[in-house]
Amino acid sequence: MVDINPTRPRRDSYTVETLLAVTVKVFNERGYDGTSMEDLSRAAGISKSSIYHHVRGKEELLNLAVGRALDSLFGILDEPAAAAGPAAARLEHVVRRTTEVLIAELPYVTLLLRVRGNTSAEQWALRRRREFDHHVAELLAAAVRSGELRADVDPRLATRLIFGMINSLVEWYRPEGDDKGADAEQIADAVVELSLSGLRVPRD
Amino acid sequence: MVDINPTRPRRDSYTVETLLAVTVKVFNERGYDGTSMEDLSRAAGISKSSIYHHVRGKEELLNLAVGRALDSLFGILDEPAAAAGPAAARLEHVVRRTTEVLIAELPYVTLLLRVRGNTSAEQWALRRRREFDHHVAELLAAAVRSGELRADVDPRLATRLIFGMINSLVEWYRPEGDDKGADAEQIADAVVELSLSGLRVPRD
Repeated sequence: MVDINPTRPRRDSYTVETLLAVTVKVFNERGYDGTSMEDLSRAAGISKSSIYHHVRGKEELLNLAVGRALDSLFGILDEPAAAAGPAAARLEHVVRRTTEVLIAELPYVTLLLRVRGNTSAEQWALRRRREFDHHVAELLAAAVRSGELRADVDPRLATRLIFGMINSLVEWYRPEGDDKGADAEQIADAVVELSLSGLRVPRD
Repeated sequence: MVDINPTRPRRDSYTVETLLAVTVKVFNERGYDGTSMEDLSRAAGISKSSIYHHVRGKEELLNLAVGRALDSLFGILDEPAAAAGPAAARLEHVVRRTTEVLIAELPYVTLLLRVRGNTSAEQWALRRRREFDHHVAELLAAAVRSGELRADVDPRLATRLIFGMINSLVEWYRPEGDDKGADAEQIADAVVELSLSGLRVPRD
């Protein structure tokens, strides 16, 4: 069907998926707290009742949006290279893939990282995010115990710093920016190299 | 002079310094945009006219607060160990000291990192912050040129990731938190080790 007025999408041209893409953009701009159903209706160009046709409300939209980020992140832990093998290689895989997922799902992970607050949807997102961090910290600690990684850096601190590096992408990475050549693969390589091998030229 | 009612400081018990400590706390909680002189007056427990006795207004308070963070950061570049010697050693010093300054001046650097927006005070802070980042990127590039650091990681990308690591501290570091033992020195060591040497146990 041809949309005769593409600036004002027809209600039936929306799916939960496309509604979510608009929603996550508005949440990231105005904050979840600061966004009303009225704001979402205006941004989507459809009435509030059309939105309620798809979802029960703002909280369900948050659940769906951060759920998408969390599913992608937890999915990494089930990948074969994350699930078996020496701990340091598994960690390397998880660090690389977390960076790639953050870039692929940038608006959704941005929302996940910015969630604060006291509604049960936000609390759930924070808990799940901490759970993911905890899995990575465990993997790092296992690689220290197996002697693959240095024992003189506290695993919990190292995990926080690695996530600090990866999560900083939501502040500065722009998919269509002027960062010529800094594509997802190059960035993931740099994160892995910095955290595991360091920048210093190895001595022979 | 004994303050007979310490919960409501006397106007003359305030200096610009102590007023700034209250201000930066409120700016970090509510955002600079979202803070009115009324909010500051309430938080400080003194009248607006008492605040105007010290400063011309909200913009001057922002200038003073981010100025304090910026002075501490730019001060690092003038330290002897940052100003002379092999580029990689100078970079190591700057990375370590930046981490230490962030911890020592946590609320002020937090404000600096959160500044957005279009007032001239905010724009000035953003420009100066980018200038500092640029100095560090230059130092990193010099260490690549001299062969001390690896040429296969883009210096600009590496700088962003190192700052990502350091700046993440404003999200998770709490001076009186339960991070037993994760003091400023340990954190600065970890940042230097991760970014320059990596976590992997070196092969002999």
